[in-house]
Amino acid sequence: MRRGLIKNVDELLEGYSGPERKLREDLLSSAEKAIRAVQPDELLRKKFRLKGNTLMVGDLKVELTDFDEVVVLGAGKATHVMCRYVEQLLGHRITRGLIIVPHSVVNDYISPNVKIRGGGHPVPDKEGYEAAKELVEIAQSTGPKSLVLVLISGGGSALMPLPAEPVTLEDKVEITKALLKSGATIDEMNLVRKHLSMVKGGWLARHLSKARTISLILSDVVGDKLEVIASGPTSPDPTKYADAVLVLKKYGLWGSSPLSIKVRLERGMGGELPETPKPDDVAFSKVHNVIIGSCSDACNAAFSALTRLGYNTIYLTHRLKGEARYVGQTLAKFILDVKLGRTMGSTALVLGGETTVTVKGKGVGGRNQELALSAAIELEGSKGCACLSIGTDGLDGPTDAAGAITDCWTLNKGRNAEYEARAFLEDNDSYTFLKRVSCLIFTGPTGTNVGDLVLLGRFKRP
Amino acid sequence: MRRGLIKNVDELLEGYSGPERKLREDLLSSAEKAIRAVQPDELLRKKFRLKGNTLMVGDLKVELTDFDEVVVLGAGKATHVMCRYVEQLLGHRITRGLIIVPHSVVNDYISPNVKIRGGGHPVPDKEGYEAAKELVEIAQSTGPKSLVLVLISGGGSALMPLPAEPVTLEDKVEITKALLKSGATIDEMNLVRKHLSMVKGGWLARHLSKARTISLILSDVVGDKLEVIASGPTSPDPTKYADAVLVLKKYGLWGSSPLSIKVRLERGMGGELPETPKPDDVAFSKVHNVIIGSCSDACNAAFSALTRLGYNTIYLTHRLKGEARYVGQTLAKFILDVKLGRTMGSTALVLGGETTVTVKGKGVGGRNQELALSAAIELEGSKGCACLSIGTDGLDGPTDAAGAITDCWTLNKGRNAEYEARAFLEDNDSYTFLKRVSCLIFTGPTGTNVGDLVLLGRFKRP
Repeated sequence: MRRGLIKNVDELLEGYSGPERKLREDLLSSAEKAIRAVQPDELLRKKFRLKGNTLMVGDLKVELTDFDEVVVLGAGKATHVMCRYVEQLLGHRITRGLIIVPHSVVNDYISPNVKIRGGGHPVPDKEGYEAAKELVEIAQSTGPKSLVLVLISGGGSALMPLPAEPVTLEDKVEITKALLKSGATIDEMNLVRKHLSMVKGGWLARHLSKARTISLILSDVVGDKLEVIASGPTSPDPTKYADAVLVLKKYGLWGSSPLSIKVRLERGMGGELPETPKPDDVAFSKVHNVIIGSCSDACNAAFSALTRLGYNTIYLTHRLKGEARYVGQTLAKFILDVKLGRTMGSTALVLGGETTVTVKGKGVGGRNQELALSAAIELEGSKGCACLSIGTDGLDGPTDAAGAITDCWTLNKGRNAEYEARAFLEDNDSYTFLKRVSCLIFTGPTGTNVGDLVLLGRFKRP
Repeated sequence: MRRGLIKNVDELLEGYSGPERKLREDLLSSAEKAIRAVQPDELLRKKFRLKGNTLMVGDLKVELTDFDEVVVLGAGKATHVMCRYVEQLLGHRITRGLIIVPHSVVNDYISPNVKIRGGGHPVPDKEGYEAAKELVEIAQSTGPKSLVLVLISGGGSALMPLPAEPVTLEDKVEITKALLKSGATIDEMNLVRKHLSMVKGGWLARHLSKARTISLILSDVVGDKLEVIASGPTSPDPTKYADAVLVLKKYGLWGSSPLSIKVRLERGMGGELPETPKPDDVAFSKVHNVIIGSCSDACNAAFSALTRLGYNTIYLTHRLKGEARYVGQTLAKFILDVKLGRTMGSTALVLGGETTVTVKGKGVGGRNQELALSAAIELEGSKGCACLSIGTDGLDGPTDAAGAITDCWTLNKGRNAEYEARAFLEDNDSYTFLKRVSCLIFTGPTGTNVGDLVLLGRFKRP
């Protein structure tokens, strides 16, 4: 995967020459460098080390000889890559464990001691449910002499569905689908899920309360809040049942919510069920949560790469949010209008985060694709600019594309082929349009997941 | 007005010292400089000159001796200031005319030959209606030997309401109010109004079709489209009745629209009424439209001012749009996170445009105030940053404030006074909150109007 992360570079550069080709190449290669910089092993190398029998996790030192067993648990889109690194480092010291990863990557790594099971993403499935049950059983079997390494990465929330009574898996799937289409943010989606779960919102820490736990967390969440990443299985949860109801009401989903979900949330609000574990819960006294990497690491790498390539590079934020089509339009205006001191050279903008798509149409697409397509609409007629938007996990929405790169030619290509960008965008069908005009970026799963990266460039006008 | 445009600088700096005071001072003084740079006389001086009897408007040369009379017509928030400059230049050559300005400034300039009447803004009123009737009568009385100078500035649309049959003024007022609250953009609002009017959407040019017309236009519209500024009285209109209906439907206003408006739009769609004049209409053959200034002029001036003050200044765009509260939150993240090459100095961002507010609450506020308050919520806890947002016309929404300047202390001040920013924002009550915490900027009418200016700054960390 290291070399040639983007599989269709030739297709993306076809027909381009001169500075326009260079601009595309530069954006694509900088995105590659950024995604490489946030590979879990790259990140873990800096924060998770072994010296003799001493495990050093940042400033924390743990003597392995104090424990009878080292258990690895976890879930997420990049958790198998994290697991590989941890096993390379600790080898036979790891005694048992289970991680849950997407079906598509379940065979990417075979561990000697850790079981790897597949689950559904972004919509949970039965296999994920069975695996989560087993994971909790292992957690409950740990004791004071167990050192548990929890490997969490984005997607863990969907991959590890363990509905709490009386919620059924079917109902949880239904509400997840509804939330995915509603325009709810990942924070809001996870807020709801935590209150329907036996593992999220700190509950996993409860199951592990006898053991010593180190949670290694790769953040895919804007703002890097521990309680939001993978719905925070080992983090105290500041929210309540009532907040989950508010989210469902905000998006008009409360009325149509499945009965079992309503019952649980209403019982919870009525005090019949315990709230998620709060910061003073004793369960967290032996838990150490460490963020090993996040979107800002990817942005910094892209910023360095573009600067080295000679661009006047502006790092704007790693906490971008908002409706993808609005963001795309606005960022396109920025790259068209941006001015910086007296510099006349090429300019680039770097942003990271995660936008949202409020699905209204029936098409196929993802937030990065909608962002790039909206940018293309704004860039039409203005030569010399390009916009790249990519999911660092290589998966944008329910498509096989990682994202897209667009410019002033994108719409025109479509028009020649009798496709009209605006109509496709209106139908949330960015994938179909961008595929026809060869603007989709394909990587396959990248082994990491720190949110989205948006790079825009404008080459020096001759 | 020249000196001390911002009336309450002392209040805005009270309690601030050191670099935080300097940052506020710098943003305030740069905003002042920007507003001064877009004063109509400053702008006209460059584009509208007299040499003997030859009038030079950009590249166009007009011999005054070819005409029997020079007529001045116009409407807008800055039109009296434009008129003053034009009269200073042409003096007694101007024979007659009428301009319509907001009631609040109707006495700011007494012209010897041009009548000045007041009208309601942003909601039209009876006085504006009577004035518009007189204006059209004058227009219709011009002939082949008339040179007509049309002075258009933002606000002209509301100030010059002349409903077309069978629309009544009351109904036009009602739909204007509804559109103002709906979150519709100014483009959309004006699109609707043009199809209800006898003067907008190119109809004024029709009334002037015998004369030679020079339209001097101060743009307050994002993108500077001629047909949108003051609803384009002297510009061809590309839109149709059906488009106006689509806008009303988009914002859920069609069903509740007054009957006379529905009747007109339906008749228009049915082909019973002529569409607005299109580009090939002969009425435009003797019309010369010139944009004398726009938001980019204000942004450029702010950019220069901040650069001279030593900031690494980034001019992002002069075409900013979007929901004010989202824009404020996002720009605050930008100023917190922004990074630029190896520079470690103070940084500033410059943006111009016009955001929108979708009114849901019952409070008092404006788009600049909502933007600045939303930024304050994001800036809380992060020292060293500030956000200024101001309407270059000195009027933000239906308030007496021009805008606001906020920083990390804004929320805290409010909390001490038992006010909670978020609740106020939720109720669209930014004015009340920002007034209590002394963050409102007061200028009074500035004599110009090129949209809004947003400046953000971060001082060098020691």
